Amino acid sequence: MSSRPLPTVATDALRHVLDGRWGAARDAARAEFGGALAGPVYELDREAYRDRVNEQMRMIASSGRVHETSNIAGGTPDVGAGVTLFEMVSHFDLSLTVKAGVQWGLFGGAVQALGTERHHERYMKAILDFDLPGCFAMTETGHGSDVQSLGTTATYDAATGEFVVHTPHEGARKDYIGNAGRDGRMAAVFAQLITEGRSHGVHALLVPIRDEAGNPCKGVTLEDCGPKAGLNGVDNGRITFDQVRVPREALLDRYGSVAADGTYTSPIENQTRRFFTMLGTLIRGRISVAGSAGSATKNALAIAVRYGDVRRQFAKPGADDEVVLLDYLVHQRRLLPALATTYALHFAQGRMVEALHDIATGAVTDDHSQRELEARAAGIKAVATWHATHTIQTCREACGGAGYLAENVLPQLKADTDVFTTFEGDNTVLLQLVAKGLLTDYRDQFGDLDTLGMMRFVAGQVASYVVERTAARSLVERLIAATPGRDDDTDVLDRGWHLKLFEGREQHVLEGLARRLRRATAPGADAFAVFNSAQDHVLRAARVHVDRVVLEAFVAGIDECADPAVAELLERVCDLYVLANIEADRAWFLEHGRMSAARSKAVVAAVNQLCGELRPHAVTLVDGFGIPDEWLGAPIAIGAEARRQRAAQEHDATPATEPVAPA
Amino acid sequence: MSSRPLPTVATDALRHVLDGRWGAARDAARAEFGGALAGPVYELDREAYRDRVNEQMRMIASSGRVHETSNIAGGTPDVGAGVTLFEMVSHFDLSLTVKAGVQWGLFGGAVQALGTERHHERYMKAILDFDLPGCFAMTETGHGSDVQSLGTTATYDAATGEFVVHTPHEGARKDYIGNAGRDGRMAAVFAQLITEGRSHGVHALLVPIRDEAGNPCKGVTLEDCGPKAGLNGVDNGRITFDQVRVPREALLDRYGSVAADGTYTSPIENQTRRFFTMLGTLIRGRISVAGSAGSATKNALAIAVRYGDVRRQFAKPGADDEVVLLDYLVHQRRLLPALATTYALHFAQGRMVEALHDIATGAVTDDHSQRELEARAAGIKAVATWHATHTIQTCREACGGAGYLAENVLPQLKADTDVFTTFEGDNTVLLQLVAKGLLTDYRDQFGDLDTLGMMRFVAGQVASYVVERTAARSLVERLIAATPGRDDDTDVLDRGWHLKLFEGREQHVLEGLARRLRRATAPGADAFAVFNSAQDHVLRAARVHVDRVVLEAFVAGIDECADPAVAELLERVCDLYVLANIEADRAWFLEHGRMSAARSKAVVAAVNQLCGELRPHAVTLVDGFGIPDEWLGAPIAIGAEARRQRAAQEHDATPATEPVAPA
Repeated sequence: MSSRPLPTVATDALRHVLDGRWGAARDAARAEFGGALAGPVYELDREAYRDRVNEQMRMIASSGRVHETSNIAGGTPDVGAGVTLFEMVSHFDLSLTVKAGVQWGLFGGAVQALGTERHHERYMKAILDFDLPGCFAMTETGHGSDVQSLGTTATYDAATGEFVVHTPHEGARKDYIGNAGRDGRMAAVFAQLITEGRSHGVHALLVPIRDEAGNPCKGVTLEDCGPKAGLNGVDNGRITFDQVRVPREALLDRYGSVAADGTYTSPIENQTRRFFTMLGTLIRGRISVAGSAGSATKNALAIAVRYGDVRRQFAKPGADDEVVLLDYLVHQRRLLPALATTYALHFAQGRMVEALHDIATGAVTDDHSQRELEARAAGIKAVATWHATHTIQTCREACGGAGYLAENVLPQLKADTDVFTTFEGDNTVLLQLVAKGLLTDYRDQFGDLDTLGMMRFVAGQVASYVVERTAARSLVERLIAATPGRDDDTDVLDRGWHLKLFEGREQHVLEGLARRLRRATAPGADAFAVFNSAQDHVLRAARVHVDRVVLEAFVAGIDECADPAVAELLERVCDLYVLANIEADRAWFLEHGRMSAARSKAVVAAVNQLCGELRPHAVTLVDGFGIPDEWLGAPIAIGAEARRQRAAQEHDATPATEPVAPA
Repeated sequence: MSSRPLPTVATDALRHVLDGRWGAARDAARAEFGGALAGPVYELDREAYRDRVNEQMRMIASSGRVHETSNIAGGTPDVGAGVTLFEMVSHFDLSLTVKAGVQWGLFGGAVQALGTERHHERYMKAILDFDLPGCFAMTETGHGSDVQSLGTTATYDAATGEFVVHTPHEGARKDYIGNAGRDGRMAAVFAQLITEGRSHGVHALLVPIRDEAGNPCKGVTLEDCGPKAGLNGVDNGRITFDQVRVPREALLDRYGSVAADGTYTSPIENQTRRFFTMLGTLIRGRISVAGSAGSATKNALAIAVRYGDVRRQFAKPGADDEVVLLDYLVHQRRLLPALATTYALHFAQGRMVEALHDIATGAVTDDHSQRELEARAAGIKAVATWHATHTIQTCREACGGAGYLAENVLPQLKADTDVFTTFEGDNTVLLQLVAKGLLTDYRDQFGDLDTLGMMRFVAGQVASYVVERTAARSLVERLIAATPGRDDDTDVLDRGWHLKLFEGREQHVLEGLARRLRRATAPGADAFAVFNSAQDHVLRAARVHVDRVVLEAFVAGIDECADPAVAELLERVCDLYVLANIEADRAWFLEHGRMSAARSKAVVAAVNQLCGELRPHAVTLVDGFGIPDEWLGAPIAIGAEARRQRAAQEHDATPATEPVAPA
């Protein structure tokens, strides 16, 4: 293992690399959003907090940045800048991010993607201006993840030319709906569409829920969800419909329409395929959530690393000066691998936003890229949000009691992001969706599982897709080819070895899973029992796939980095990411003969060594994220602790008027 | 691996076993604490929340239960009942637990343990009645874990017969002190005692901080710590002393006193030993924190398991009925091993409370048992609080969006317990303390590390102690002796094999650590560098030691269980605990040739199978904790979700007036 000391890297140079393709959008956000509205707050009561978020919404609407990301003014919408905007806003207020996501991403996105021209003309400007606060009323109390089973009905009444929207029982009420608790005027309601006595599956309709005075519309019962763990600047609520009538035009009819006489037509024949096409609108939301999780993780790491770089505890043996926390191996072990993983996910997120942008703007048009992106969005959302939960928790603990104080922001970061793992698709469900995509390659081996109804379990939310090699394929193949034959002879830092190990793991797990699931095709097999006994393998297959995708994105990102010093630092960060990942999963590599015991111990030792090598660069690495101090907010990270340490040292250095000897 | 179906166990029988030696105290708490004051609340503003906690404090004080646990009325105090009381109160309000812990455990405990008769006579009744709210002013902004380095000084002025208490710089202010923010009248202040120009190390003095009207005393600056992640019913604050004078009698002088002329005397010559004797008062606090963490974990599991037992999501292949969440393997995998570990820790906690009681009441008097208990308290506190953090997080996620709502209590459980891992001794520091105790056996091999000053790093808080075999030793030896020779031939459920594996792991890790640390004794060695490069091994040694202690306590607890059906269920729970532990650490067993790859895979498979076997008993297992529904509070766990599921099923079963066919 090499140990050449790393060069010093200028923070600006690193930030420039990390800012990537939408660096201008990032700089604009840093420059435009400041003052009283851009920074963490705490202990506002709920109504005041919601008022503040509404003010922030208007600040963003009036900046015009959201309008640029839509096609309202004609021209090509800058979708990448839009997602980047959410990512930047997440550095200073996650309630704002979610409120904006509901208004512009989900509600606006549904009108845009599922509606037709008359809907766009009538509503889009008011939506972008935040003059028409709206809801994305999909989730029900009884059905969060399983959207296909929603209970709300929209029954067409040909006699009056209206749809009757109805909630049949408590479990079918719309629940957890952002903007429904207080501000929303209209909702895109997802309901089972029924006409001429037949059900055509889930469709969306625009239903007014409050009048101009803020009172509930007739037949609509609105309820506030009440306080939550976090995100209390968002007014989540519940909506119950009692035979609410809306005109036929309320149906967002791009993928299914009802004629005046009740005849149903759709450009997509198959009901399941139609359903999943409509759900495609969720992709952008998932990508945004992954980005927000990344931003919150970066804030937490910036706070913990900067504090750990000045905070001292316990004197060295035989010396008076106390040791800086981040000089302890265990402190490095807690923070630096998490920081390295955050870097890896940053590059994976960047690739994903580029893919979304290129598809949304028509630069890339193939169906295959679209399905690859769906898988990527689901998988990275799951991995990034779990990483956020874990890392923010670790950062809180690393800051001790100071990290528990609201003023130091970590409590809010933890509480706000906590729901990310289970909203916009529960992570467990999303990983099953990823696994399903991976399995389509094995379809021949075990027949059409969709027919068996079993794949409903493997993934409830998209029809099917093919997962491919990443764009970095040729680079990856070149690196793998350059690796010597016997693994134990290879340097543990050899990137080709890493890539080969990740690839081999993915292939092995996936093949094993396919073999297990094939049992479901045996005569008389209990398909659910077969699936259920393999469910841990299903999640694992998805997880190791995402790990490979993330590593390849990181490798490709470094390959494209033009600054040699930055690239060298990033290589070392990538080493730590990949070795910490292998270390955490080394039981599997050992069980499957992919590593010897000696090699496994060498990996553990290498993680320790890399922590030591990166420790002097830790502050540079978090400063490279380019989070303004004003957004970061935590006193312990922006001067208070450094000032206290100086004062203590000055006090200790000043001789007392009467010297005190220890007894 | 056996798979005999488990008998049905009555909840009451299980609860009786779990209630243990202080079952009567548990039943009294269940019967006495109810109504508006005993149950979770949310969205109270801070002042109202603090008022409520004070009301709860008075409820407990007036029940007389606290007085029974002290020696105020003469006779033997029921210390075990006292700790059990904290454990029970933790089931319904953790702010109350902490406030009570500060008032009666820490402040009262310091007066009791460090003071002498005049302090007891003057203050103890008012403390127990909660008429004299007091602070335990140890922690400083600059020094949380390293108490020996506190900066506050108490300098004796022989001219006036007073101590001058002073805060020399911001880092030395008392910080995070419970009762200091609003209610406290007096503080037990830990300060460097200086008399006749010499420092005698840290001692505690009683210093009035507020007058009867609630105004700060002269020279005392009080500040509220402001909002925290949780525990906002506790008024944590900061105290700064500007040359505050208190009479000589203010010194809690059991272990060190100052005569009128300034002469210092102490029954304990050695300053370090004296310091650690005084810190012995913290043991009970750590045991109580471990118990509170256990209670909070049990509440979270009760909520998640009961919800998972009724909540449905996704229909089975080829069927209409949706699957109950807890029937999914992955859902079982998230909750049931955590539940099994909670059981294991429950038994370990029970043993520890018994040991504390027997020592405190004089039933056990040897110095060795005392030191063993100190180690046990530190280690189990660390393991139990990390387990709480991890498990409550998992339970929140397992309940999806419902788990994020304040009404379902999980957010508060998470936020309140989050600081447990870093207060009453940071877990990382505590584990180093445990390791230090374990290493005393190896002292001969590497000389007196205390002389080197190095052990200060291994543990900053106690002098040294010897860790011994647990009380269950003969049982454990019998079980190990009954295990056949070759491990791979043994049933994975063989308890002797488990015990042998845990014991062998502990011994191997500890020996390796001793070898590493011995390098510090080489001429010219950098003691800090040697320690630091082994710090991960230090923590690991402590961790695997605690794992063995916990397993042996569980095994002993089952051995003593008189009800055969309960014992059989507990054996299966113990199987899951131990195999999930081995599974999580199987990389180590593989690396060190303690398990074959095939055996390792068999362990993983056995965890899956045990999850399935225990699943039908999951609700019984959480109900066995005996937490009244009123204390639990969460609607999803006490009927709301069950009612919704019934309504949905009734709706689906009722034929619509006009049948709707799918298109």
